[in-house]
Amino acid sequence: MRFSQLYAPTVKEAPADAEVVSHALLYRAGFIRKAAAGVYTYLPLAKRTLSKIENIVREEMNKIGAQEISMPIIHPAELWQMTGRWDDYGDEMMKLKDRHGRDFALGPTHEEMVTFLVKDEVRSYKQLPLFLYQIGPKYRDEIRPRFGLLRAREFIMKDGYSFHDSEESLDEAYKACSDAYSKIVERINLKYMIVEAASGAIGGSQSHEFVSFAQVGETNLLRCNSCGYSSSDEQAPYRGEYEKIEEDEKLIQLVHTPNVRTVQQVADFLSVEPKRIVKSLLFVGRNGFVMALIQGDRELNVEKLKVFMKDQSLRLATPDEVFETFKVPIGFVGPVGVNVPIVADHGVRHLKNVVVGGMKEDYHYVNANVGRDFNPDHYTDLVLVVENDPCPVCGKPLQAMKGIELGHVFKLGTKYSQSMGAYYMDREGNLKPFIMGCYGWGVSRTMAAVVEQLNDEDGIIWPRSIAPYEVIVTVVSMNDERQKKFAESLYRELNNKGIEALLDDREISPGMKFKDADLIGFPLRITVGKSLQDGFVELKLRNEKNQTRIEADVSKVVQTCVNMLDSYDPQRGR
Amino acid sequence: MRFSQLYAPTVKEAPADAEVVSHALLYRAGFIRKAAAGVYTYLPLAKRTLSKIENIVREEMNKIGAQEISMPIIHPAELWQMTGRWDDYGDEMMKLKDRHGRDFALGPTHEEMVTFLVKDEVRSYKQLPLFLYQIGPKYRDEIRPRFGLLRAREFIMKDGYSFHDSEESLDEAYKACSDAYSKIVERINLKYMIVEAASGAIGGSQSHEFVSFAQVGETNLLRCNSCGYSSSDEQAPYRGEYEKIEEDEKLIQLVHTPNVRTVQQVADFLSVEPKRIVKSLLFVGRNGFVMALIQGDRELNVEKLKVFMKDQSLRLATPDEVFETFKVPIGFVGPVGVNVPIVADHGVRHLKNVVVGGMKEDYHYVNANVGRDFNPDHYTDLVLVVENDPCPVCGKPLQAMKGIELGHVFKLGTKYSQSMGAYYMDREGNLKPFIMGCYGWGVSRTMAAVVEQLNDEDGIIWPRSIAPYEVIVTVVSMNDERQKKFAESLYRELNNKGIEALLDDREISPGMKFKDADLIGFPLRITVGKSLQDGFVELKLRNEKNQTRIEADVSKVVQTCVNMLDSYDPQRGR
Repeated sequence: MRFSQLYAPTVKEAPADAEVVSHALLYRAGFIRKAAAGVYTYLPLAKRTLSKIENIVREEMNKIGAQEISMPIIHPAELWQMTGRWDDYGDEMMKLKDRHGRDFALGPTHEEMVTFLVKDEVRSYKQLPLFLYQIGPKYRDEIRPRFGLLRAREFIMKDGYSFHDSEESLDEAYKACSDAYSKIVERINLKYMIVEAASGAIGGSQSHEFVSFAQVGETNLLRCNSCGYSSSDEQAPYRGEYEKIEEDEKLIQLVHTPNVRTVQQVADFLSVEPKRIVKSLLFVGRNGFVMALIQGDRELNVEKLKVFMKDQSLRLATPDEVFETFKVPIGFVGPVGVNVPIVADHGVRHLKNVVVGGMKEDYHYVNANVGRDFNPDHYTDLVLVVENDPCPVCGKPLQAMKGIELGHVFKLGTKYSQSMGAYYMDREGNLKPFIMGCYGWGVSRTMAAVVEQLNDEDGIIWPRSIAPYEVIVTVVSMNDERQKKFAESLYRELNNKGIEALLDDREISPGMKFKDADLIGFPLRITVGKSLQDGFVELKLRNEKNQTRIEADVSKVVQTCVNMLDSYDPQRGR
Repeated sequence: MRFSQLYAPTVKEAPADAEVVSHALLYRAGFIRKAAAGVYTYLPLAKRTLSKIENIVREEMNKIGAQEISMPIIHPAELWQMTGRWDDYGDEMMKLKDRHGRDFALGPTHEEMVTFLVKDEVRSYKQLPLFLYQIGPKYRDEIRPRFGLLRAREFIMKDGYSFHDSEESLDEAYKACSDAYSKIVERINLKYMIVEAASGAIGGSQSHEFVSFAQVGETNLLRCNSCGYSSSDEQAPYRGEYEKIEEDEKLIQLVHTPNVRTVQQVADFLSVEPKRIVKSLLFVGRNGFVMALIQGDRELNVEKLKVFMKDQSLRLATPDEVFETFKVPIGFVGPVGVNVPIVADHGVRHLKNVVVGGMKEDYHYVNANVGRDFNPDHYTDLVLVVENDPCPVCGKPLQAMKGIELGHVFKLGTKYSQSMGAYYMDREGNLKPFIMGCYGWGVSRTMAAVVEQLNDEDGIIWPRSIAPYEVIVTVVSMNDERQKKFAESLYRELNNKGIEALLDDREISPGMKFKDADLIGFPLRITVGKSLQDGFVELKLRNEKNQTRIEADVSKVVQTCVNMLDSYDPQRGR
């Protein structure tokens, strides 16, 4: 391709709404344009990179025996009503009516669709396991789309679904897909981590995320540099010491604490350490209110509470809900005399003479004691593990990082097959619901995640495997016939040798050409300029400072190109 | 791929709603499954065939310098409001609201989206011409989806758009894309025709359709076997003789014709020839009613009327609309004394003493005469040309055929650029709207059109270029170790040589295997059966009756395979 023909409008300024580097650079380098909030057009460079990502994903999925299909984007409501998710999915699902008034959704995920597909068609254990996947657009009506492709409303996903007649068979597919995902990230040269994850609204028993490291990212990660343990912060168990206070129980007292609401305010006002305060948080779930207690110096991990209570719908009660029932502002909520189930973190058990909310506006209790003044119904681990907490495996301090979720593997069990009546006949002739797994990979998101991890002040640094072109041949002066001619023959020979080259034949200044080459981020640049008259051209890898001078002989240049690309490491220097 | 692993559920019976052979066979052969009316899942075999069609289209588009992009499926209403098509497009456009109540459409076509994309970004004639295309899902909310993939609501299209600074430049792109389309159909081995077409709701000055011959099909074609002229019936001009009646004008008379409404009824009741009756049809358009007159033995071509009146919104008035204004049932409408613009076909001009509606229930005029009793405002060609009418080029009788529209090229002119304010600066520094072309190709429809044209009583006959697999290796008895072993090594060697082979290793009867092979329609079948013990295997092309016996030597069989596939003509015998 010649740059003069290529539709890649590069610009100096990032759009006003670009809060993250991938959004800014993909826009500036002419990869994406916005059509509406969270809805983007992929221009030719992006299309090339996305196709390469798709092909890598496709190859790795095919290798594990998964078969590519393509399911509809519009889903009849009936399918989602069978599993109850038509209502449960909430406002994030985009819905429409056809001309006859029938309800449809724009598929955010395809568990219902794929279960419907195999239902009554796969009838015997002999047809199992079966692993189907597709690559295509997905929809999520984000309340606030932002971060460019990282939180879009229309985005490209690979979603796979597997069907089994035993847990062991599911385990095998889960493992195979996890291994395939590792290969995908490695082929794309990303630094990543596999973390145990919460399975959220998809449901199921086990789940791992494949997370790419990034400066920004919705996933908080914890890693142990000592033993290699890693987890999302939502999943990490707390294995630290608990405070044990050995002192006599004092007399409980209700004290006036006007406008003193937060832990820090209470600590300051009453001159106590935060860890001697017990925070009381009211949640609402399927069965009404639940109170959670935790030491004042720790944050509560809501996921742990949900799992413990087996209630994914649990959420923090609003101030209005609390006031309506308990007639007290949330800053003064406490466990003394309250008539709701109480779940306390283990850390609360061994405290003595603590401060808790007074259950009365502007009042707190001091010297409250577990067992005497309030009685948790359950003790469990509710701590949100943070940086420097001990590693649950080896005890060394954990490190905190941010990441972008690229892939997600779930063990679904029989949730979908059972509710949709999708059964097979087992070896003994009994009808059983399929045991299922599901496996997502964010394709458009991968493109953005790569840019988040691989960039510098000049632009993007594409890994070779997904660069829109591997090499750019920059002609310094289009008026110089010799430069033009050499560049042309070099360009032809590179393409003949299967190296994807872009010829920058635009009639603009060399400075602008170099800037664009760096901004777009081609792995290798060949400069055909003044030194050609001395018989040389310059080769430069995107992330190296220095150029390599090479004799201007087409086949020698091509050979050096091949060698440099083969050894190119986009992560070098990070 | 091994058939035992492949998800291709073949079935004996076509679904109840399958009215056409492509729907029945693609379902029976395990290519497609319905998710909702007009909404289909593509199973692995279909996905392979579709990918091959997409790649052929992509290669031919890239060859003419078109660049692949990917535009959103959901379009903000504002874009469509700029061109007025938000309202004009009607019920066929699927619409939805996002969580904030903003309107979106599911793109049925992308003129607005692509014009918005280049607007303010392509600013100079130097950046022109520009040709962008994409391949992806499109939506049309058909009132009655049917014929499987031929009239679906969600379907795959290639849509391309070109931008120019002159008509000549547009002509070049139009020609280049037309040539590319011819190459596409030829690579897919379809019998087809290029016809002039009406540009319909898309608008524009010139338009051709690429139509595949079929037993069923929404396009009525006319072809001259003598000179090669071809056209859709909507576009063909009438070049036949017109009736000239030389007789004295008789006295006009209003006669009682109770319940006599159709031309045939009038002819029978009054004992006149249909060609002596003038049909009067009332249309409603932008400027109210228009009456069209045509001889009773001909049908009216509404497209010709629309073009003549320059009003694409023209449609037949409903009986209620007619009655409300004219107080007469439509069977008795006539031109005498009527106060609306009248457009008559040339054929009406030279008639004498004709029958027309009486503009009064149960009455007709006889002996009405042009010029004396009614005066058309315009004469033009309104005839729907039919089989055996003379060819407009050479005068020989035309032949009628049916076809399926695969591709469509349009010259749009400045309709979209002007209404959306998409301008570039020309050589002289003047702002001008882009001159545009647009170019559609039905990808999923191509798969169905191939099946419509290439099938027999046993199933599909795929052309090699888009067959899901080129060869099936059928093992007659999976209990025979020798057969299994030879088939395995043959299968491996075929794949090594780049021939896509499927190994039928299922433990079912050979009869069922042969039936499935024919139903799915692989170009070549290799049977590894009993004759292996005598040192032979059998090769059979899908559309030949006889098998070829070949020595069971892997490399010889592979070589014969290559030769047979190279010479394979799926159209042979049709």
